[in-house]
Amino acid sequence: MADTYGLDVPQTLEGWYVLHDIYAVDWPVWRSLEEPRRDEIAADAARWLTIAAGCEKGDSALYSILTQKGDLMFLHYRETPEELKRVELSLRQMDLFGFLVPAGSYLSMIELGLYELTTIVWKRLADQGVHPGSDEYEEYFETEMGKEKRRAEARLFGKIPEHRYICFYPMSRRRGEQLNWYTLPMEDRRELMRSQGRVAHKYHEQVTQVVGGSIGLDDWEWGVSLHADDALVFKKLVHEMRFDAAGALYGEFGPFYTGIRVQPGQMPELLSGALK
Amino acid sequence: MADTYGLDVPQTLEGWYVLHDIYAVDWPVWRSLEEPRRDEIAADAARWLTIAAGCEKGDSALYSILTQKGDLMFLHYRETPEELKRVELSLRQMDLFGFLVPAGSYLSMIELGLYELTTIVWKRLADQGVHPGSDEYEEYFETEMGKEKRRAEARLFGKIPEHRYICFYPMSRRRGEQLNWYTLPMEDRRELMRSQGRVAHKYHEQVTQVVGGSIGLDDWEWGVSLHADDALVFKKLVHEMRFDAAGALYGEFGPFYTGIRVQPGQMPELLSGALK
Amino acid sequence: MADTYGLDVPQTLEGWYVLHDIYAVDWPVWRSLEEPRRDEIAADAARWLTIAAGCEKGDSALYSILTQKGDLMFLHYRETPEELKRVELSLRQMDLFGFLVPAGSYLSMIELGLYELTTIVWKRLADQGVHPGSDEYEEYFETEMGKEKRRAEARLFGKIPEHRYICFYPMSRRRGEQLNWYTLPMEDRRELMRSQGRVAHKYHEQVTQVVGGSIGLDDWEWGVSLHADDALVFKKLVHEMRFDAAGALYGEFGPFYTGIRVQPGQMPELLSGALK
Amino acid sequence: MADTYGLDVPQTLEGWYVLHDIYAVDWPVWRSLEEPRRDEIAADAARWLTIAAGCEKGDSALYSILTQKGDLMFLHYRETPEELKRVELSLRQMDLFGFLVPAGSYLSMIELGLYELTTIVWKRLADQGVHPGSDEYEEYFETEMGKEKRRAEARLFGKIPEHRYICFYPMSRRRGEQLNWYTLPMEDRRELMRSQGRVAHKYHEQVTQVVGGSIGLDDWEWGVSLHADDALVFKKLVHEMRFDAAGALYGEFGPFYTGIRVQPGQMPELLSGALK
Amino acid sequence: MADTYGLDVPQTLEGWYVLHDIYAVDWPVWRSLEEPRRDEIAADAARWLTIAAGCEKGDSALYSILTQKGDLMFLHYRETPEELKRVELSLRQMDLFGFLVPAGSYLSMIELGLYELTTIVWKRLADQGVHPGSDEYEEYFETEMGKEKRRAEARLFGKIPEHRYICFYPMSRRRGEQLNWYTLPMEDRRELMRSQGRVAHKYHEQVTQVVGGSIGLDDWEWGVSLHADDALVFKKLVHEMRFDAAGALYGEFGPFYTGIRVQPGQMPELLSGALK
Repeated sequence: MADTYGLDVPQTLEGWYVLHDIYAVDWPVWRSLEEPRRDEIAADAARWLTIAAGCEKGDSALYSILTQKGDLMFLHYRETPEELKRVELSLRQMDLFGFLVPAGSYLSMIELGLYELTTIVWKRLADQGVHPGSDEYEEYFETEMGKEKRRAEARLFGKIPEHRYICFYPMSRRRGEQLNWYTLPMEDRRELMRSQGRVAHKYHEQVTQVVGGSIGLDDWEWGVSLHADDALVFKKLVHEMRFDAAGALYGEFGPFYTGIRVQPGQMPELLSGALK
Repeated sequence: MADTYGLDVPQTLEGWYVLHDIYAVDWPVWRSLEEPRRDEIAADAARWLTIAAGCEKGDSALYSILTQKGDLMFLHYRETPEELKRVELSLRQMDLFGFLVPAGSYLSMIELGLYELTTIVWKRLADQGVHPGSDEYEEYFETEMGKEKRRAEARLFGKIPEHRYICFYPMSRRRGEQLNWYTLPMEDRRELMRSQGRVAHKYHEQVTQVVGGSIGLDDWEWGVSLHADDALVFKKLVHEMRFDAAGALYGEFGPFYTGIRVQPGQMPELLSGALK
Repeated sequence: MADTYGLDVPQTLEGWYVLHDIYAVDWPVWRSLEEPRRDEIAADAARWLTIAAGCEKGDSALYSILTQKGDLMFLHYRETPEELKRVELSLRQMDLFGFLVPAGSYLSMIELGLYELTTIVWKRLADQGVHPGSDEYEEYFETEMGKEKRRAEARLFGKIPEHRYICFYPMSRRRGEQLNWYTLPMEDRRELMRSQGRVAHKYHEQVTQVVGGSIGLDDWEWGVSLHADDALVFKKLVHEMRFDAAGALYGEFGPFYTGIRVQPGQMPELLSGALK
Repeated sequence: MADTYGLDVPQTLEGWYVLHDIYAVDWPVWRSLEEPRRDEIAADAARWLTIAAGCEKGDSALYSILTQKGDLMFLHYRETPEELKRVELSLRQMDLFGFLVPAGSYLSMIELGLYELTTIVWKRLADQGVHPGSDEYEEYFETEMGKEKRRAEARLFGKIPEHRYICFYPMSRRRGEQLNWYTLPMEDRRELMRSQGRVAHKYHEQVTQVVGGSIGLDDWEWGVSLHADDALVFKKLVHEMRFDAAGALYGEFGPFYTGIRVQPGQMPELLSGALK
Repeated sequence: MADTYGLDVPQTLEGWYVLHDIYAVDWPVWRSLEEPRRDEIAADAARWLTIAAGCEKGDSALYSILTQKGDLMFLHYRETPEELKRVELSLRQMDLFGFLVPAGSYLSMIELGLYELTTIVWKRLADQGVHPGSDEYEEYFETEMGKEKRRAEARLFGKIPEHRYICFYPMSRRRGEQLNWYTLPMEDRRELMRSQGRVAHKYHEQVTQVVGGSIGLDDWEWGVSLHADDALVFKKLVHEMRFDAAGALYGEFGPFYTGIRVQPGQMPELLSGALK
């Protein structure tokens, strides 16, 4: 095994499993119910969401989505695939589910890409003459990753940001015949990530970004959630990133979803056709 | 942070949030209703549209769409995402909604791309030795943008043009492996925009163009609405733009929708199968 | 404005608006009707088609489509978007429509591309020292176009060719990163069109070709209808065109539909499951 | 007209029109019928298939398809588009059709590509100083094609091969920006076809290949049916062809369908959920 | 026939036919059943799965899939296409099937690519002056393949790995205009496979990989199943492979499915909305 094996792969840290779960409401059928029955079902759904959101290890939230892409987007953070599946299954047992039409979903894990840390540790070990693959190397590396994970605990295992608006989109890095993110030298990718980070940093007081890694889990490589109190900022931020080299050359984007946060207690009101 | 940071990003001004909202009518089920009931529902829908169109900060309109792409296209301008979502929700509570099949929608914001202004201000500040990122720079820039916004108020926050026909299509700029709009120098992009503007200008007495920016909001980068009193002009204008370098090299187009304006009061007639 | 502005854009002449309108029959539900009711509905539909085909300014026809792509394709030529929409709306009010499943549609306008004429006029004016953009130029050009339109009246505003078979397909010219029709010099495009015309000419006694331009109207750039009395000729003609440079390098093709002409009076028979 | 006009187009011979017609069974609704009714409908369907297969000029067969791509694939050879449409229409009038969900179809004509013959004839005529386009040339060419058609009669107008398994897939030749089958010199294409033929030949005792040409008829350029008594051979043959230059560089493939031959008399058994 | 004919095609060994068969549960309709009826149907389904899993030559298993891509994924290994079709047909006859919505399926055969063996045998034969195509060559080759098949019997004809999680995705090797797996020299492909194997080896204690070859059988070239007791490992492994040259340059990936193993006896519980 060559010494450099794996040295071009940036280390990542993973936090909660994440599910974006989007539904359209079948309004005509829903509205054909007697009002007391509707109230009852909506109250049940609100209780379900309150309990889901009260989950100790994770979180749950609801967004009202614009356009025909859907009406409701549930967002769940959970500790395990089983916990995610259980919250999916529990929604399916609610009477409300009979009035929901599946409209899209996305599975990922909160992820921190450690371009900087990976490079620093490699360099430090190389300086000390410690070689990749050696026991000493593996041990040291694992220790450093553990430290980093503890430092990043709040980001990896936090609550859903409370901002009023969400912008969700899946994306991948280009693997074209001429432009291929995955064949760029580690150093170049790190530089591009830094530059992209600079754009994110410019908006960091207005936008909280939660990156879900989904390689091996779902159809794109990441599912990105932006959280802000002014929806216009999504447009500004994504527009600016499109001119950054990482975005311009290597970004491939899936559908974009724009939503407005709805508290569990407001769910019955939303289901009666009103939005606060 | 380098001095040139962000200098390749054209500034934009945003006006109303815009929703294109397209539906097919389920004619057989609709026609199976007793006529008085149909009249009642259609009158309700006409009232809904009248109220929506009467909105102080924004506007609403209806188009009868050709082909199987849909029957009705509602177009809404609104001040906030909440206002847009409310008009969506209010339609969903109408009895008519039980006879509509969702057939497409698009979210954007009326946008002015300020290639010219951005470049002028940069140049002026550079001449004065004011550097990007400095407080002086930011202040001056914001002042100029504010002035421009006031000048452009009628275009950003106007009513829906009253022309008889609409041509709506989403589009993006190419981000190919060899041809990439987002890696072109600012100067080149400005030149291409100017040239494209010349084509638009040639038709400006016949066509009113409303550009909705949708980066970060929906799946394409822009949603373009052309408004004219002769539908043939859409064909002529889009054909001519296809030969312009910006269109030929960097334009990627989504589906095209052609519609005929229908006043709220004519909606019952349209729903009875007639078109004035 | 440069003198050469617009000189790379071939002029086009437009005739009728065209709608291809394709439906599958929901046979099981249709067959579940009592036979007298079916006969009544089919007779109504035949009357509707007879009236539609009797339209003074335009024409209408019906084809029985092969494969699961649909059962019925209506083809309409009309003078205005309103007239097209009215014929769409009138079909939707027929009882038969309750048994039709929309399966595709296409909007275009009968088009003649004037590569030869455009070039000749330009050259003649240049020889006389008349410059594009000047009043004299515009006037002369318009006069020539008017003359050509009168000459081409039968092709632009004719009836649907009466041949037994139709082959319909939408297509676009390639706008690739290396091969881009829209950045070719006018002269090269004219040459390619000429060469393609030669293939069409070879078959002109067997095939009548009606080209519908749809830039700015629908999702492809053209909707091509071939009409012939031997379906095998479609295969021979399209095969041969695929080797022609215009087709080989710049042709992009959508779905192909093959149909058999059905007279209005034969519609009830077809709806009873028989084909003459 | 240049002497070489059309010399790069390989001649083809056409036999029967071919329809692949695939359906899923709506098992729950089908099974909800009383058994005697099901038996009756299945027996009717079996009779229909027996009659269709008994067609003098052509043939019909049924395959049980694996995976959710469908349950039943009917394969029809017929003399004319009308005959194909009639067999489609007759299935639609069967009671069984109420329990079938359309799942795909494909239209083509049995085709022999005459790369070798075309080249030989051209060469011979050139040696004799006979020029393409001359009456002498056309006459000679037509005579040779007629002879070849008689020689190939069994392949063009034969019965469906009786092997137990079918592998059906549509395919096209690549028309990319760098690699374009249709701009290769005739000689190169002939060489590539020869090489591909060599792979086919290696398997010719195990696999009968029926190529349906579909340029101008359906969405891909060919619809290929492989017939064999061991399904593994499909995998071996297509795998090997993928490494052949024609396949590697110029082959583009649509969906693959794998099916098991079912005799008309076994259709009731299959519809009761059993497979012999 | 050239001596080198077929020498660029790696030999493969095939084991069981494999079907991945994915369904969504129609929860509202399912839940509308009386509980005793639901229990009965679920128990029947569990018995069906127990019998299917008890199959002597092959195996069957069930996974609970995350996200809206489906609820249940059945995985079947079988000896013949007929056996696979029979297990498909038997599920369709279960009452449970009336509450399942088809959501995807994939057909393949367990496959071992013999890059190493193929090369070794070729070399050995070449050293002995034995030429491809000669009887001696074929005989020797077949003998060696037979030996290898016996050695690999457990992998080709084994049981479904018992790990708790599954990650299933179809994939193909790129056949681009510049980067084309199938035109690489055998030697290069072998090297790339070796390198990819090294990544797989690194995870071999945590992940069992079952590769299903599907060239000629389904729409991608392989269907890959990863089995592990920690779902995070899927993300780590696929992420790392994406940087390996074979993955970075030549890997094209379809949808990813993540599932949790459910024993036949746990099926009723899952269908009541609970997951152990």
